Amino acid sequence: MTTINRQITLAARPVGYPKLSDFKLIESPMPQPDDGQILVRALYLSVDPYMRGRMNARRSYAAPVELGKVMTGEIAGKVVQSRHPDFKTGDAVAGRLGWQEYAVADGREVRKVDTASAPLSTALGVLGMPGLTAYFGLLEIGKLSDGETVVVSGAAGAVGSTVGQIAKIKGCRAVGIAGTDEKVDYVTRELGFDAAFNYKTVNNYVEELQRLCPAGIDVYFDNVGGAITDAVFPCFNSRARVAVCGQISQYNLEKPEQGPRLLWKLIEKQARVEGFLVFQFADQYKPALEQLAAWVAEGKIKYREQIVEGIANAPEAFLGMLRGQNIGKQLIKIADPEA
Amino acid sequence: MTTINRQITLAARPVGYPKLSDFKLIESPMPQPDDGQILVRALYLSVDPYMRGRMNARRSYAAPVELGKVMTGEIAGKVVQSRHPDFKTGDAVAGRLGWQEYAVADGREVRKVDTASAPLSTALGVLGMPGLTAYFGLLEIGKLSDGETVVVSGAAGAVGSTVGQIAKIKGCRAVGIAGTDEKVDYVTRELGFDAAFNYKTVNNYVEELQRLCPAGIDVYFDNVGGAITDAVFPCFNSRARVAVCGQISQYNLEKPEQGPRLLWKLIEKQARVEGFLVFQFADQYKPALEQLAAWVAEGKIKYREQIVEGIANAPEAFLGMLRGQNIGKQLIKIADPEA
Repeated sequence: MTTINRQITLAARPVGYPKLSDFKLIESPMPQPDDGQILVRALYLSVDPYMRGRMNARRSYAAPVELGKVMTGEIAGKVVQSRHPDFKTGDAVAGRLGWQEYAVADGREVRKVDTASAPLSTALGVLGMPGLTAYFGLLEIGKLSDGETVVVSGAAGAVGSTVGQIAKIKGCRAVGIAGTDEKVDYVTRELGFDAAFNYKTVNNYVEELQRLCPAGIDVYFDNVGGAITDAVFPCFNSRARVAVCGQISQYNLEKPEQGPRLLWKLIEKQARVEGFLVFQFADQYKPALEQLAAWVAEGKIKYREQIVEGIANAPEAFLGMLRGQNIGKQLIKIADPEA
Repeated sequence: MTTINRQITLAARPVGYPKLSDFKLIESPMPQPDDGQILVRALYLSVDPYMRGRMNARRSYAAPVELGKVMTGEIAGKVVQSRHPDFKTGDAVAGRLGWQEYAVADGREVRKVDTASAPLSTALGVLGMPGLTAYFGLLEIGKLSDGETVVVSGAAGAVGSTVGQIAKIKGCRAVGIAGTDEKVDYVTRELGFDAAFNYKTVNNYVEELQRLCPAGIDVYFDNVGGAITDAVFPCFNSRARVAVCGQISQYNLEKPEQGPRLLWKLIEKQARVEGFLVFQFADQYKPALEQLAAWVAEGKIKYREQIVEGIANAPEAFLGMLRGQNIGKQLIKIADPEA
């Protein structure tokens, strides 16, 4: 086994869009597990929009990544050495162990993954944090009811694509907003969304939403914020709910953007807007994952993965994801599962 | 009895701040009740911020007042003629009967008022729509819990002054925002708010809020919107709730204002913003009014009324209220209760 652990660290705090030079690939000695710890070999790394916030100096809901430290992120991998009674070599696990090939963890930082029913990589997507985010955001924050109309932005991403499919399972109308015609085709033709539009080629979002949502909008699952979100508010039905999951349109602005004031519309429609983090629902992960796995097994939820090879390419994959170049879940394959 | 009914009609749709010339005092024939109706003599008329919205052409949550028609508004008065089995001459009633001296109503449009325990005028204030708005907004939308910190804007108004006092009854810290030093003194010295500030003399609202809310803000009751509301969002604790009741800072703008985008903060704090109308809670008015009346009787909720005389002065009183010239409830005394 190699004695080198390759890691991606935060080399500089980005101004606006991150650049490749904001990251650095370094080689460190292989970490050694103490008693009660395991050594995990990463097979897949996930890149997600929230990581952009961790690159800033300012504390958000979590502390920033320190300069020179390993980038934060979820990996799925295998236990290669165990000094923990609950884990054995070969166990499949997932957890927030950072952008690196190997990591030491104690039991609390990882969860075991059942690879008999679904591939390991899904633990980072539809059967991981993105799937859970869609599930709890739509059902617990959005309080979706049968027959309602759901609009989701970032519709072709790992979260958004799951949101629309859960809406369909629940007997609702699902309308997506995405940034390419290919994504629009994907969510409507492959995933069964009722409708979708490409915000880069449509001029009047409000008119398009009114056309695609003839019964108005009951739930909006917001991944993007900005001008797209501004256009959804005027289309609300009474008692509409907004699950605010992400605001990716705002993460790379050098200067905060101004926008129309939206609160009057909330009075007019007695509507509710709620921000959430999936961690709020940690005590309900287990049944939710079982439900999601059942829907995947039944073919009711489909997913797509876009995979690049090698940890050295993680920064580029992350930048591409921030620019919307992925359909479905963007992953980095760190090592061959069978190697 | 007079045969003339003086009424205030909407003469023109305002651009920006309304002017006296947007209203017209007219004399109409005394209306006659049919079978199943009552004739009500108005003793007090209420002017409230929501009426500004009714002067616009655009439908909001309710239809606009038509040009040339009587302005919408609540009155409290007495039945002077009854052809309805449930009402008799002399009954005290309140209802949305418009800016006029007399009105015909059926039973559904008015409620009887118990004047044994509180003056009739309170049916338009602390024991009427403003009191109910404070009650349901703070407790049902704001979901106030013991020991939390509540901030209320428009703190010296009919709604805001009640919000802060209910917060105190519930064992919370109440902090007000108002537009004159006299209002700040009123809510802190007379009503028992823990703190308040004058937004017209304080420069940095965020710093002032941080100073006055050392444990952060859990509930914000928003009557005003705009720059004041912008400053509250950065001070939220996790799981903060905003009850959006009014946006008076925005009602008289000739052009909609832009502002900072606030949704990211909702994610960071897992916070919730909900607009509401008091009518949502119509089926709970009775116990709420009993509770409010008990608090008033016990001296736990105090109120102040600012009263001008004569229906001809209603437009001026309304304009003064829009400019924040009232402390407590702004009323127009239409006729002497004993006359």
